[in-house]
Amino acid sequence: MTTASSTTVLPFKVRDLSLAEAGRHQLRLAENEMPGLMALREEFGASQPLAGARIAGSLHMTVQTAVLIETLTALGAQVRWASCNIFSTQDEAAAAIAVGPTGTPEAPAGVPVFAWKGETLEEYWWCTDRIFDWSAEAEAAGADWIGPNLILDDGGDATMLVHKGLEFERAGAVPDATDADNHEYRVVLDTLRRSLDSSTDRFTRIASELQGVTEETTTGVHRLYELAAAGTLLFPAINVNDSVTKSKFDNKYGIRHSLPDGLNRATDVLMGGKVVLVAGYGDVGKGAAEALRGQGARVIVTEVDPICALQASMDGFQVAKLESVVGDVDIFVTCTGNKDVIGVDHMLAMKHLAIVSNVGHFDNEIDMAALENLEGAERVEIKPQVHEWRLPTGRSILVLSEGRLMNLGNATGHPSFVMSNSFTNQVLAQIELWTKVDEYPIDVYVLPKHLDEKVARLHLDALGVELTELSAEQAAYIGVPVDGPYKVDHYRY
Amino acid sequence: MTTASSTTVLPFKVRDLSLAEAGRHQLRLAENEMPGLMALREEFGASQPLAGARIAGSLHMTVQTAVLIETLTALGAQVRWASCNIFSTQDEAAAAIAVGPTGTPEAPAGVPVFAWKGETLEEYWWCTDRIFDWSAEAEAAGADWIGPNLILDDGGDATMLVHKGLEFERAGAVPDATDADNHEYRVVLDTLRRSLDSSTDRFTRIASELQGVTEETTTGVHRLYELAAAGTLLFPAINVNDSVTKSKFDNKYGIRHSLPDGLNRATDVLMGGKVVLVAGYGDVGKGAAEALRGQGARVIVTEVDPICALQASMDGFQVAKLESVVGDVDIFVTCTGNKDVIGVDHMLAMKHLAIVSNVGHFDNEIDMAALENLEGAERVEIKPQVHEWRLPTGRSILVLSEGRLMNLGNATGHPSFVMSNSFTNQVLAQIELWTKVDEYPIDVYVLPKHLDEKVARLHLDALGVELTELSAEQAAYIGVPVDGPYKVDHYRY
Amino acid sequence: MTTASSTTVLPFKVRDLSLAEAGRHQLRLAENEMPGLMALREEFGASQPLAGARIAGSLHMTVQTAVLIETLTALGAQVRWASCNIFSTQDEAAAAIAVGPTGTPEAPAGVPVFAWKGETLEEYWWCTDRIFDWSAEAEAAGADWIGPNLILDDGGDATMLVHKGLEFERAGAVPDATDADNHEYRVVLDTLRRSLDSSTDRFTRIASELQGVTEETTTGVHRLYELAAAGTLLFPAINVNDSVTKSKFDNKYGIRHSLPDGLNRATDVLMGGKVVLVAGYGDVGKGAAEALRGQGARVIVTEVDPICALQASMDGFQVAKLESVVGDVDIFVTCTGNKDVIGVDHMLAMKHLAIVSNVGHFDNEIDMAALENLEGAERVEIKPQVHEWRLPTGRSILVLSEGRLMNLGNATGHPSFVMSNSFTNQVLAQIELWTKVDEYPIDVYVLPKHLDEKVARLHLDALGVELTELSAEQAAYIGVPVDGPYKVDHYRY
Amino acid sequence: MTTASSTTVLPFKVRDLSLAEAGRHQLRLAENEMPGLMALREEFGASQPLAGARIAGSLHMTVQTAVLIETLTALGAQVRWASCNIFSTQDEAAAAIAVGPTGTPEAPAGVPVFAWKGETLEEYWWCTDRIFDWSAEAEAAGADWIGPNLILDDGGDATMLVHKGLEFERAGAVPDATDADNHEYRVVLDTLRRSLDSSTDRFTRIASELQGVTEETTTGVHRLYELAAAGTLLFPAINVNDSVTKSKFDNKYGIRHSLPDGLNRATDVLMGGKVVLVAGYGDVGKGAAEALRGQGARVIVTEVDPICALQASMDGFQVAKLESVVGDVDIFVTCTGNKDVIGVDHMLAMKHLAIVSNVGHFDNEIDMAALENLEGAERVEIKPQVHEWRLPTGRSILVLSEGRLMNLGNATGHPSFVMSNSFTNQVLAQIELWTKVDEYPIDVYVLPKHLDEKVARLHLDALGVELTELSAEQAAYIGVPVDGPYKVDHYRY
Repeated sequence: MTTASSTTVLPFKVRDLSLAEAGRHQLRLAENEMPGLMALREEFGASQPLAGARIAGSLHMTVQTAVLIETLTALGAQVRWASCNIFSTQDEAAAAIAVGPTGTPEAPAGVPVFAWKGETLEEYWWCTDRIFDWSAEAEAAGADWIGPNLILDDGGDATMLVHKGLEFERAGAVPDATDADNHEYRVVLDTLRRSLDSSTDRFTRIASELQGVTEETTTGVHRLYELAAAGTLLFPAINVNDSVTKSKFDNKYGIRHSLPDGLNRATDVLMGGKVVLVAGYGDVGKGAAEALRGQGARVIVTEVDPICALQASMDGFQVAKLESVVGDVDIFVTCTGNKDVIGVDHMLAMKHLAIVSNVGHFDNEIDMAALENLEGAERVEIKPQVHEWRLPTGRSILVLSEGRLMNLGNATGHPSFVMSNSFTNQVLAQIELWTKVDEYPIDVYVLPKHLDEKVARLHLDALGVELTELSAEQAAYIGVPVDGPYKVDHYRY
Repeated sequence: MTTASSTTVLPFKVRDLSLAEAGRHQLRLAENEMPGLMALREEFGASQPLAGARIAGSLHMTVQTAVLIETLTALGAQVRWASCNIFSTQDEAAAAIAVGPTGTPEAPAGVPVFAWKGETLEEYWWCTDRIFDWSAEAEAAGADWIGPNLILDDGGDATMLVHKGLEFERAGAVPDATDADNHEYRVVLDTLRRSLDSSTDRFTRIASELQGVTEETTTGVHRLYELAAAGTLLFPAINVNDSVTKSKFDNKYGIRHSLPDGLNRATDVLMGGKVVLVAGYGDVGKGAAEALRGQGARVIVTEVDPICALQASMDGFQVAKLESVVGDVDIFVTCTGNKDVIGVDHMLAMKHLAIVSNVGHFDNEIDMAALENLEGAERVEIKPQVHEWRLPTGRSILVLSEGRLMNLGNATGHPSFVMSNSFTNQVLAQIELWTKVDEYPIDVYVLPKHLDEKVARLHLDALGVELTELSAEQAAYIGVPVDGPYKVDHYRY
Repeated sequence: MTTASSTTVLPFKVRDLSLAEAGRHQLRLAENEMPGLMALREEFGASQPLAGARIAGSLHMTVQTAVLIETLTALGAQVRWASCNIFSTQDEAAAAIAVGPTGTPEAPAGVPVFAWKGETLEEYWWCTDRIFDWSAEAEAAGADWIGPNLILDDGGDATMLVHKGLEFERAGAVPDATDADNHEYRVVLDTLRRSLDSSTDRFTRIASELQGVTEETTTGVHRLYELAAAGTLLFPAINVNDSVTKSKFDNKYGIRHSLPDGLNRATDVLMGGKVVLVAGYGDVGKGAAEALRGQGARVIVTEVDPICALQASMDGFQVAKLESVVGDVDIFVTCTGNKDVIGVDHMLAMKHLAIVSNVGHFDNEIDMAALENLEGAERVEIKPQVHEWRLPTGRSILVLSEGRLMNLGNATGHPSFVMSNSFTNQVLAQIELWTKVDEYPIDVYVLPKHLDEKVARLHLDALGVELTELSAEQAAYIGVPVDGPYKVDHYRY
Repeated sequence: MTTASSTTVLPFKVRDLSLAEAGRHQLRLAENEMPGLMALREEFGASQPLAGARIAGSLHMTVQTAVLIETLTALGAQVRWASCNIFSTQDEAAAAIAVGPTGTPEAPAGVPVFAWKGETLEEYWWCTDRIFDWSAEAEAAGADWIGPNLILDDGGDATMLVHKGLEFERAGAVPDATDADNHEYRVVLDTLRRSLDSSTDRFTRIASELQGVTEETTTGVHRLYELAAAGTLLFPAINVNDSVTKSKFDNKYGIRHSLPDGLNRATDVLMGGKVVLVAGYGDVGKGAAEALRGQGARVIVTEVDPICALQASMDGFQVAKLESVVGDVDIFVTCTGNKDVIGVDHMLAMKHLAIVSNVGHFDNEIDMAALENLEGAERVEIKPQVHEWRLPTGRSILVLSEGRLMNLGNATGHPSFVMSNSFTNQVLAQIELWTKVDEYPIDVYVLPKHLDEKVARLHLDALGVELTELSAEQAAYIGVPVDGPYKVDHYRY
């Protein structure tokens, strides 16, 4: 199953110097686009606020994440890393980080990275498990055992593994999979069963040392709130996703960039003049619709929330039910965070070679399972991540990234500048949890607004933005400090 | 001072049948653009949820407000009305409402309205005071005394009058004006002094009967939160301003419409190719910038909040300090809600015939007081609400609406459809306070999200929007009821 | 400077000093927005290239035209003026021009102007006839008889009057109207019959003195090309309409400005979220569609030309037949230059209170004649130029400006800056015809490209545009002079 | 159907079945996006209007060109092909075309193609020469000698080779290269010298058989007009470039698509918030500016033509000299068609890691030669077609595609739908020259407008466009045939 032997520190993929060098070039360019992270290195490089922190990271192993990782280490942290998606690793970034600026593939001097593009699910969970295994670091430090004390998570898989691992250790056994369990959950169970076989208290010890988690995504945050509500959350969590400089930037401006990029790399199809259906008009949908209009497409929006539907209409978009327009649409883009938004019946009603894609995080927004089970449907690979599905109607559709996030699968995800905003939030959140542990009893928190504003502030110079300063009199007049925060917590931006 | 005698029920302005008829035509057209209000008439016309409510209204007396007023009465309320701005009354709307659909100027059968375009400050506060005088209604009802039991407020003047009136009645005297008091506050003191002379407990009785206030604006809401924080708020308040269907619609889409309208009616100046400075990139500034870009202007934004500044930059606008660009700008538009955003030094540095205007609610965003005191400056009226100020530099600037809200002073304010959203919130808030008084102890509230979504829902059909319905399975999957609300309270839209 | 003698019959409207003073203020502001005309005054004020020119002008008598007229006189011309549309005169502009900067209504020192807002057709043609009657000027000059030697025309009415007048003088009689003649043509015949009654060679003499005409519009140009093709054109003509700085600016950017302005002043209806049908995607339609999208409307285009239809689609607009969408549309705007684009059957299928308007020059784009003859239809005036038509279906529609140009009828037409481009072309064309008569044998011409580029150049400074200069080497490389012209004649911009 | 005999030397690249199969998949998808070409196959497949035509094609050997080639053969033509750019070939497209739908690499049954990605200049001109060598076809046909009778050209290299070849054959010798000749011209001379060595009348015979050329680009058209003006043009030419459906679509909508695509694939840099300088506001610059604004960039335009500069300003863009803003710009895009637009002095003044790119056709728009000669400058390859140039200032810049067309070098050029417009013009032009040779004496022509409109018409259905039909009455009213053409020749669209 996994190609890395159990004694190997680094996956084979990163043992390639030219890959590492290519990655290092890209890191250098990305650093120029990530002014927030570079500013943190400057501000905190000397004081080393993350000294002692051991961070288990699970987040798409891209060039941008590489800059994040090197920022964490520049602030004193030790780090182990896995990707949070089987397709999203950029191998040259993984190689560069693993090798490190001064190392070689033979003598790596970087960060242990367990990620490569195109993992199997078995490999994926093996990698995730590796970020909790700090035996090499313990050995290097001459310690008996050490574990991570912070998680940096994207989607909550790492956090889930600890929670489930502890649960099964307490129960004394990992349950057998049931018929209702999907393939991935079976792999998780297998992974935890192997862990339990090797140690009856491995996750118990890990959980006891963890001071907290910082979570990147809507999905992961949703899980955290559920755990907190159920009283089973094991450590405090900071919801990075709901920082304004994350959700309103990453979701909107990131998708605005990476959606057309993914369409182009996947299909080279002209967007101008085409009818595009954007399912969902949240921040992701807003970014998608803006990008497509900017390319001359005619955008139709579907929505369930009347407020968002009214916004879409006020922004000049037709709002319709999918059923009403399905036969007129050239390109479908799901952005809902819900499931079964596009079903097989919809697909059967589409135009020949309609493009079907998802940027909404959940890979079941398009009902791929039903498509795969559709009698008479045939899948033809046009190129990796681009498949023609020949349907029993005689028509075909083009499915991107197998229904998964096409902006990651067909393009390179959000660009560095957007990720610099998200990741500066991440680093500040890690510092909060590490340095102010007493201020965060077990619960889910958002970063205080002044840190959110700080993240924005660190990105202004790079864009040539001149910020106006309030006079003391003006600040008093509207009842805010001169240096902010400037808005009430519920302000919507 | 006031032209209406003390025995007159209605101001002279409305005694004009052709005015009333013109207003009635406009009401009919406005009703077609206010589907939310019309839907409430249909839903609640029979059940009369506002029966018994006596509403003292203080809100721009426009055609849209006329539809609001007739909706309130259609739901059973009695109403008295004043405008909340000396310039904003549309006389034909006031006339139509005062005369009523079935009345005549001689035998009015409408709602007592105290408002006309171009009031003096003395007249303005006399009008505001009138909405608390229900003696005519008491007489008609054969009652000894009755007062209002609800306030519908815009900017908080009516609410302030009650709070100050009560304060001075408790103190036994209205204080003398001090040198620090501006002209308007002196008029308020005079108004309350006359009230106290006529009755020592008038506002005491009024305050005791009031079940609450619903407030339309940021400014008014700000005052309410201050009162609540100080423990001096006299009755519960619903903050209509922060309904999503108010703040994100009225502020953004309303300004997008009415800012260019005001510029056109005031100056007829081509916006295309011009450099326009938009001060503030909140919802109002966002709407302003979008409108101006849509007309081919080059927009420069000023901001103090780094998050909003970053948004402006991501939206493609130059963000600069006013000082850096003042000499290049053709049109200035303030949207900040702060004071002294444009000072006299800025004005002296402007291009010849630069246009200076404000849509940010506070009339001190442009430092008009300092301009009026500037030695050597001369004011020339080009037409009403458009003044050329000849400056000692030899250059002139054009000031719109004397620095007050130019979208109201130079145009007709937000269009009916936008106001239908705000006002549907207002009506729902009045119903809440009137029918569920026990659920609202003295404090400041926002409307529950399901009502916010309802407001949006009532406006979709008119725009041809088809709303998608969640399946039960989908709703469960994302953890919301099928019929909403669909979002967490802090969702930013 | 032209002055009207005390015996000249000036229209009563201009005998109003306050009107003239208001107009003078507006002229001053407009001059700031018409840098092209002001630059011509500077360049040619001393050399007086139009000395001796006697110009009969027929063009909307607006504030912008006033600046044009005073530019013509500043360059030495004598001028008489009428409007070319019964509704388009701005009375204060007419008054200001007639009174002149130094005159009074009693002792006017301006230009004889025959135009007021709201002329009857009889008045309109009387006014047009007046611009050919230079008896007052002859008297002032002590001459036996003089006539105009240049026409400045908009739509070709003045040119047509001379051609028809000459034709009937040659025939010896004005024919009787036939049943096929519409009302307006009957008025023209009456006007010419009166002329013929007074003199058998009046238009013969006028035609013999005329050195040429400069024509502003598509319509007028079309007539000129027909005359030239038929060999009956009496004098050379310059087609100002097809200067790039006219057609691509006036049509596109002018409409972008004045269409939403007209909708606002007429109806105050929110454009955001509305479905708007733009009939025709020529330059006017392109400007209309851009303006409406900029306001958040959803625009549907109709087209007959496949190239323009493809452009509309590439620009992101739905392109449909009117029949397919008529029931979904909130606002109709015709921009075709053709007739019967919206017929009565369409109107009967429209939504209640759909708005029907035209900016396409021809007042028969909307079949108003058929509407007026529709049994059971009733017209209700909401306000001047805004009429509700109650249809036999029980629904109503709102018709703006009686189907005529709503951007002139409901707003103030194109803004000064746009007209400065058109009118700078006009002045340069008048100079061409007056000073280089030998270079223009009888035919229809467009201005040479270097003059077109000059017009643009004169408008750049006002917008802060920095123009790049070609090096001699670069100019040679692309084969153009350093100072232009830079493009081949068929370049499309 | 053309087949290459077993003795034909096919370039090695196409001898790869998997490459050919991948290309065949892409062709199938591209056909769906090229409705104009597919419609021609349907319309003309039976009548074979190109039977007997032997076409020498020189045009970027992309997937789209593959569909063009198979359209030409479907209409009866024999074809040989080379690319017109050393970098632009898509090898899988070349392979698919060479192998043909039914062939194999060992037994190719397609069209002889001489093109691969990354040719040297020597290889490039060898390939170009090959399209004039029809010996294999002659052999297959049992003929003594045959040559091409039509050229389909892009940039004019094939046409130039014939003209120069004939010139030197007449002169009896190919001149020696002079010091002033650049490297490429030396290669051309070598190529022709080899030809002359092999035959003294090869190009003489070729030229005598050629019935004409259809030319794709501004550059090539410019050369043709120079030849025609000099009286040295050897055969008639159709200027496809100036068809509206080519220049206004390919240039504007093609660049709108492929510019951001190239930036993304080359750099993954966020465009939102960035300052981008677009040099030149012709059709290409207009498309570039629109695309970048649609991605949230702040666009600054440079222009030499005052009309285009005024358009840019009216469209809301800052227009400045490069010198004034060079230090503020993040991304430079040249679109001028001129040389030395960005010089070394500019580069030395740029921000660190500013991106420098060209989509303006001429590879000297950026003065790469001077950069290569700059002392102290060092070139680092980040990845193919992306180079960091470390400058003596200590700053770096990123140069895309070595200054050549980055939308071809870093992306995949214009998308199929855009090229379908251009190429449908090409096919119609080839048919014109082949079937109506007598109507085209030697000169340069544009396609008649009815064919231009036909091209547009063939692309409407695919976009769901409903075209309105004129009534006979309406057509008469505006003086056009019901079926078009609808516009005068100088109409600007």
